[in-house]
Amino acid sequence: MEKKLTGRVTVPTDVDMIQETKEIAKRWGADALRDCDGTNMPDELKKMPVKIYSTYYTTRKDNEWANANPDEVQQVYLMTEFYTAMEEGELRIPIMKHLYKDQLKPNTLHDIKRWWEVVDRTTGEPLAADAWGYDENTREVMIFNPERYHDYTVSFLAFIIWDPVHMYNFITNDWQDVEHQITFDVRQPKTQSHVIDKLTRWMEENPDSNVVRFTTFFHQFTLVFNEYAKEKFVDWFGYSASVSPYILEQFEKEVGYPFRPEYIIDQGYHNNTNRVPSKEFRDFQEFQQREVSKLMKVLVDICHDHGKEAMMFLGDHWIGTEPFGEYFKNVGVDAVVGSVGNGTTLRLISDIPGVNYTEGRFLPYFFPDVFCEGGDPIKEAKVNWVTARRAILRKPVDRIGYGGYLKLALEFPDFIQYIEEVCDEFRLLYENVGGQSPYSHFKVGVLNSWGKIRSWGTHMVAHAIDYKQTYSYAGVLEALSGMPFDVEFISFEDVIADPDVLKKCKVVINVGDAYTAPSGGAYWTNPKVSSAVKAFVAQGGGLIGVGEPTACEYQGRYFTLANVLGVNKEVGFSMSTDKYNWEEHSHFITEESPETIDFGEGMKNIYALSEAEILKKDGEDVQMAVNSFGDGRSVYISGIPYSFENSRMLYRAIFWAAGMEQEMKKWYSSNYNVEVNYYPATGKYCIVNNTYEPQETVIYDGKGQARSMQLKANDILWFSF
Amino acid sequence: MEKKLTGRVTVPTDVDMIQETKEIAKRWGADALRDCDGTNMPDELKKMPVKIYSTYYTTRKDNEWANANPDEVQQVYLMTEFYTAMEEGELRIPIMKHLYKDQLKPNTLHDIKRWWEVVDRTTGEPLAADAWGYDENTREVMIFNPERYHDYTVSFLAFIIWDPVHMYNFITNDWQDVEHQITFDVRQPKTQSHVIDKLTRWMEENPDSNVVRFTTFFHQFTLVFNEYAKEKFVDWFGYSASVSPYILEQFEKEVGYPFRPEYIIDQGYHNNTNRVPSKEFRDFQEFQQREVSKLMKVLVDICHDHGKEAMMFLGDHWIGTEPFGEYFKNVGVDAVVGSVGNGTTLRLISDIPGVNYTEGRFLPYFFPDVFCEGGDPIKEAKVNWVTARRAILRKPVDRIGYGGYLKLALEFPDFIQYIEEVCDEFRLLYENVGGQSPYSHFKVGVLNSWGKIRSWGTHMVAHAIDYKQTYSYAGVLEALSGMPFDVEFISFEDVIADPDVLKKCKVVINVGDAYTAPSGGAYWTNPKVSSAVKAFVAQGGGLIGVGEPTACEYQGRYFTLANVLGVNKEVGFSMSTDKYNWEEHSHFITEESPETIDFGEGMKNIYALSEAEILKKDGEDVQMAVNSFGDGRSVYISGIPYSFENSRMLYRAIFWAAGMEQEMKKWYSSNYNVEVNYYPATGKYCIVNNTYEPQETVIYDGKGQARSMQLKANDILWFSF
Repeated sequence: MEKKLTGRVTVPTDVDMIQETKEIAKRWGADALRDCDGTNMPDELKKMPVKIYSTYYTTRKDNEWANANPDEVQQVYLMTEFYTAMEEGELRIPIMKHLYKDQLKPNTLHDIKRWWEVVDRTTGEPLAADAWGYDENTREVMIFNPERYHDYTVSFLAFIIWDPVHMYNFITNDWQDVEHQITFDVRQPKTQSHVIDKLTRWMEENPDSNVVRFTTFFHQFTLVFNEYAKEKFVDWFGYSASVSPYILEQFEKEVGYPFRPEYIIDQGYHNNTNRVPSKEFRDFQEFQQREVSKLMKVLVDICHDHGKEAMMFLGDHWIGTEPFGEYFKNVGVDAVVGSVGNGTTLRLISDIPGVNYTEGRFLPYFFPDVFCEGGDPIKEAKVNWVTARRAILRKPVDRIGYGGYLKLALEFPDFIQYIEEVCDEFRLLYENVGGQSPYSHFKVGVLNSWGKIRSWGTHMVAHAIDYKQTYSYAGVLEALSGMPFDVEFISFEDVIADPDVLKKCKVVINVGDAYTAPSGGAYWTNPKVSSAVKAFVAQGGGLIGVGEPTACEYQGRYFTLANVLGVNKEVGFSMSTDKYNWEEHSHFITEESPETIDFGEGMKNIYALSEAEILKKDGEDVQMAVNSFGDGRSVYISGIPYSFENSRMLYRAIFWAAGMEQEMKKWYSSNYNVEVNYYPATGKYCIVNNTYEPQETVIYDGKGQARSMQLKANDILWFSF
Repeated sequence: MEKKLTGRVTVPTDVDMIQETKEIAKRWGADALRDCDGTNMPDELKKMPVKIYSTYYTTRKDNEWANANPDEVQQVYLMTEFYTAMEEGELRIPIMKHLYKDQLKPNTLHDIKRWWEVVDRTTGEPLAADAWGYDENTREVMIFNPERYHDYTVSFLAFIIWDPVHMYNFITNDWQDVEHQITFDVRQPKTQSHVIDKLTRWMEENPDSNVVRFTTFFHQFTLVFNEYAKEKFVDWFGYSASVSPYILEQFEKEVGYPFRPEYIIDQGYHNNTNRVPSKEFRDFQEFQQREVSKLMKVLVDICHDHGKEAMMFLGDHWIGTEPFGEYFKNVGVDAVVGSVGNGTTLRLISDIPGVNYTEGRFLPYFFPDVFCEGGDPIKEAKVNWVTARRAILRKPVDRIGYGGYLKLALEFPDFIQYIEEVCDEFRLLYENVGGQSPYSHFKVGVLNSWGKIRSWGTHMVAHAIDYKQTYSYAGVLEALSGMPFDVEFISFEDVIADPDVLKKCKVVINVGDAYTAPSGGAYWTNPKVSSAVKAFVAQGGGLIGVGEPTACEYQGRYFTLANVLGVNKEVGFSMSTDKYNWEEHSHFITEESPETIDFGEGMKNIYALSEAEILKKDGEDVQMAVNSFGDGRSVYISGIPYSFENSRMLYRAIFWAAGMEQEMKKWYSSNYNVEVNYYPATGKYCIVNNTYEPQETVIYDGKGQARSMQLKANDILWFSF
């Protein structure tokens, strides 16, 4: 038997939980303790033989400073709704309508004629500075002579007078008598110096802290509340709250062209991840990364100078840090910790290059919304663990941990017991993986507008929350997060710079809705992009298109690579052309699929070109088809919401597209509820049951030799090869 | 009792049908006889006291001429499929691949470097003349140095060596030993003079013909067959087969800019009715109308000079005549006859201005596809008649008639009997309508890219055939074709020229898929268009949007008039914005609708703005919603396939949008299977049962007074008011 492993686990604590924390730390084999937003680390525990994480807020929890320096409170660009000039004469736009007045306050300290923008959305033109004014009393913008029946919006800067995450925690936990924490902007000179001094002092005042857990650095992702204190706008990747005139003037100097609020406002879409990024936004993002990483380094160096580790929380004020970007790895951050919602978000953490270790914060948070009468925290924990485990087996985080109020969890002894088992399972798994890459059949590329910087992050809006418009596509990444392939995220700009970048892959996937960043929009009209992908396939590569791949109405086709994919979308322009190819065919890819495949939202009006082979259709809507192009192959699938059977279907599609279907049954389970991973570094392989029921399967090893096997619910079995 | 009416009916005949024709003419009360493609008028019948229609082919049935003048055979612009340069070096494109070689022959008589075009569809650029050549033996275009992996197409001119309708009739009727009729181009000088001479001679040789039924004039709508002699491309409105270098040189001179094949090819879409027309295509259409009408007038004048009427068949070679255009009414055509597929196609004929009378050719044709063992011609005739009758009651054709082989129909005596009843019913109806406009509540405008010229013709591809992408929208026109409203078709160009053009209407409808001509595409980014529609609604008008109305991704919105419609489409760019309005409401519009409404294809990802009221949704897809804007109202409906219950729903929506719901119960039937029309000219009104079952209803007269009523299947009852 293996020796009992310990460590790699972080437990939250609080001042009134001293004995309980010690007990739990022992049961879970924890080697680190942490405080949280709303809890404090008791002094007695600081002497325990474990690492002490201290949550550190660079940007809030210091209202004295914020109130004394109102000009350096963090700002956000906001756009009003659309207002129509219904009458002749002045139009008044109440800029704070539908916004939460305790969260946001219009910034009139800086020149509003320079930093605000009033746009005629009927023409797309901004108004001249003398065409509008602002009434501070009523918080209304006056447009003096609007064009009647034109629609207008106001883009304006507001101060964030209540930190959105503090507000969220405040409301979720029903805090009383807690002062609203103001967010300040650490990038600005006075605050920057203040924060640096304060951190240095903190170092000296907290000798027992081993890990400074930055929550996070400087800029909150965009999170805005409405007049009812309900979420109004959320973009986990949003840069709109990373701005100030101070920063924007620097940006202007650096890029050499004048700034416009529209670069951030983006017609009200705020450059979210689904938007094909404009040049200006890419410039801004680049600028922010450079500046944020510089300042991060200052703070991280202070930690190091005091013998402490710097850990970054991947969330909250993480904007501009961009762990997959060019600059992050130079900062010297020791560790990243992040919330794990599923396999995709696990990889979003564990794949981060350039840190010493990563830590996953698993769900549920010990918050009263789940740890309450009638709550079922074990169920949530099980789903979360089994979902994430697939991805951990591909690329483990180095540690796991929990957050929230320990006292709430203690009221659920079965939960405490289950987490104990999870901790043991995780440690064994980590040991067997051995810190090296698991066996990978080959490389799969995901081609989109973002590439590396949004590794695992496309199709996300509010972290791991499902959206109707994305779950059918997010399923592709979720499936990939646990598959035995190397996954590389490639941007169209990468392809433009070097068309051969695709050749590292055997299969390239393009997945998303038309005109979105994941699909690519106008990038597909760039001959360098379209030719590179055609060359890749023609020379033997595989292309898998999901949803509206390569879509951009252009030169007679809606799918610009219709001739590669073998399908196109009938958007009404080619109804005159008769379509005769409607027969379904059985195929290698669908051999294990049920009669009715769940394509999620699916896709309407897809038709097959005459040479393509339809695998599934719904009436006259093709849902799946295959085609060949030169020496390569392509697969079209309308949508792949995540499920074990869909994951298997995608797995087969990848092998078929690669022309390697005869290689599939290596490290393979005949039952798709069970997966196999092999770790050459340790010679171990594991068989993992992803379901909550027992499973039978036939396992094929690396030589393709088969043997039958039975697994208990959730089982993970380890063998030597 | 009314006296027995006769006349207004045309019967097809043939040489071996003399006695039978006389018998049928008597039973059906026919006052006109006609020959058809493949049949001949027997001399004996020419002396009957009825009008004799003679089918006259201006463009075919004269292979001697065509063969002697191969340069004046009619031409068509064709585009090949897309060919990718898979290797370095020459790319060869077989231009006739997938085309029927007995129908089409590439035109190499004219300078192919001037009239053909090879386009790099990857860049959108045409190739220089010296970059390609043509091998006549293999019928291949050679591109000498293509860019590797770029896609290329060839646009070329071909002679139509087998008239497409002749070919269709040949195949449908399984003709044997019939020479393929070649289409020649009457616009060209030699042929023009030949055709004029021939018509003049024909006048003298056919003194007994009263009506010259032109089948039709000069240019066939686009109809191309594939290598298996099956339909490959059909556009009933298509102009691609109305071209020749001779014509195009005139066009160039007139418009003052050089012609490009792409103006006709249009990326392979061939400017079909769903395409927002380009300026160049509108110029070409205008030019063709002027020239076609001039030449039509020459032929029509010859008829008149010889005491004969000129009747135009609305079909086959009707391109350029455009009966709803500016020039048609000056030609002096006496009558138009056309095929009636439903209410919409009935109005396509009966609404034509500037002719003395119109005639509907009802279905089925007496062809062996229906008049065969197991065929059910009565059923087809009943459906056809009852469907068209709604529209006839709004705007009657002046005559009805049939086509095909009389001898086939005679084998179905029940059919003969049913048509006798139809003829009687039609004559009574016509008498009661009294040649004046029926009572109309108010005017409804249909706003699209085409306006008047495509009255009733948007959403059509191959005449009355349903397409998956259009039936949910065509239902709006079909419903309107029988509703007691004046219907006016208004184009965006009309609105740009005069925004007040909308004020004639109480309600304006915009119906179609995004970026199609019926919806409007980029027209909605024109401030004149958007402001005019907003002004119309704000000042009390009603807007009904169906499908993707006002859609064009622009300045932060997918539906450019989202603030008027109260709904928008989530195309992935505004997922970050929370959407809280999901509650369904009961409403005046849906009072008579069933729990499950048939929206046809429906629409995904529509969401309601906060102030709008949702009437129906399907999960998170809003299917119907209402909104107010200024003093006006708007209604959004995702699709309205034609049915009696959907027609009623639209009827209620129109009254609600007009703000006149209290006026609805005048000339109204409580049962939506029954409709009421009132004719002020005669003081008559009719109650019509549109179904094949008996119906009970309560009828409201013009004063809103109600009375119960029972109707037999298909019944039409007439009363005086």
